Amino acid sequence: MKPSDVSALVYDTFGTLVDWRGSLIAELSAWGRERGVSVDWEAFTDAWRGGYQPAMEPIRKGERGFTSLDVLHRETLDKLVVQFGIKGLSEADLQHLNRGWHRLNPWPDVVPGLTRLKKRYFLSPMSNGNTALLLNMAKRAGMPWDTVLGSDTFRAYKPMPEAYLGMCKLLDLPPDRVMLCAAHNGDLGAAQKCGLRTAFIARPYEFGPRPNPDAKATGNWDFVTKDVMDLADQLGL
Amino acid sequence: MKPSDVSALVYDTFGTLVDWRGSLIAELSAWGRERGVSVDWEAFTDAWRGGYQPAMEPIRKGERGFTSLDVLHRETLDKLVVQFGIKGLSEADLQHLNRGWHRLNPWPDVVPGLTRLKKRYFLSPMSNGNTALLLNMAKRAGMPWDTVLGSDTFRAYKPMPEAYLGMCKLLDLPPDRVMLCAAHNGDLGAAQKCGLRTAFIARPYEFGPRPNPDAKATGNWDFVTKDVMDLADQLGL
Repeated sequence: MKPSDVSALVYDTFGTLVDWRGSLIAELSAWGRERGVSVDWEAFTDAWRGGYQPAMEPIRKGERGFTSLDVLHRETLDKLVVQFGIKGLSEADLQHLNRGWHRLNPWPDVVPGLTRLKKRYFLSPMSNGNTALLLNMAKRAGMPWDTVLGSDTFRAYKPMPEAYLGMCKLLDLPPDRVMLCAAHNGDLGAAQKCGLRTAFIARPYEFGPRPNPDAKATGNWDFVTKDVMDLADQLGL
Repeated sequence: MKPSDVSALVYDTFGTLVDWRGSLIAELSAWGRERGVSVDWEAFTDAWRGGYQPAMEPIRKGERGFTSLDVLHRETLDKLVVQFGIKGLSEADLQHLNRGWHRLNPWPDVVPGLTRLKKRYFLSPMSNGNTALLLNMAKRAGMPWDTVLGSDTFRAYKPMPEAYLGMCKLLDLPPDRVMLCAAHNGDLGAAQKCGLRTAFIARPYEFGPRPNPDAKATGNWDFVTKDVMDLADQLGL
């Protein structure tokens, strides 16, 4: 494909654009020190993220109505607070911790890379995050989106086809004029089945020192890149 | 209210931010000269906009499912082409003309004013336009939105309460932390009933030389401004 074959680049967010694990561990550790709460925050963060896919499953299967990721994160948090024996948290504390997902830091190539790509393409996240979460994250980090369309605008969770096709419908573009940029082969495969273009963005350290099953591209993607700056290079920007 | 009482400023678009009438008359006149189509383009433009409110009415009343403004504009255009006796248009011509609504020019204060306001507030259009229309308009004009949430994201047309409240829900903000900025008193009144804050932006020449029933603020709005730069002044930015 030629760089002019697509009009919009849409981005997976957790892992692809932001270092959710490093950001949360740092924030929770600092908060724990300040509040005198001593917990294995790496294990806590991994368990919190571990609840992510299972929490969306009933919604994907149609067993539960669409529920925003903020609510799903909170349900998992409430369980983990008990499981890790954290006591004495107020409702305001829990809300603050839950909004840690709004305060994730981007990988260093993200803001300069998106800034280059914005010159030619429409840019939006394409995430299971809800709009408010993604907006707060973007505003804090200075991500130069053209729009922020969260999963609550098309009311479906990836890898449901309704998510990818719902995004294309809102953009009023045929799927082959939209490219998903993501660090996860499964996400790219589901988008490709819906007719979208695909760009792999390598994030070998998404899980820190833990093994990453998506360290390398395993599918026939339109672009395979090292990061967002490399994608801008490959697209001639 | 204090400037810090609100987090998001959402903007009516047609009339408030863009000069739909002047833009369309200029574009259609140039197109007509090029194609040798001689029509009273002022009358044509006013008739096209005249079809706007009636086209949304069946949707507001629940008699028709949600249909995007691009489709409604096209239905009106198809009728007007017959009514004005314009012959020989291809499907591509009709699509091009219909997308004239994506190519409207902002009033001169809009881009610099929004740029100032973006420093403190989340900014989105709050329009009956669909997302793709608003995105194309913004990209062409350089409007610095944080997000572009069209009426197809909350699937309701102003002044339905579902539109204002749907926007607040996507932003995950209580209505009193969202301010509608608009040139139309009716729009502001409907938002105020839903609990939103209100800023009137004067656009006395929205209809060119024709009388404008919304030339002046007639309600008890939180701010009454001359334009978007004046709003930024009044909010201390």
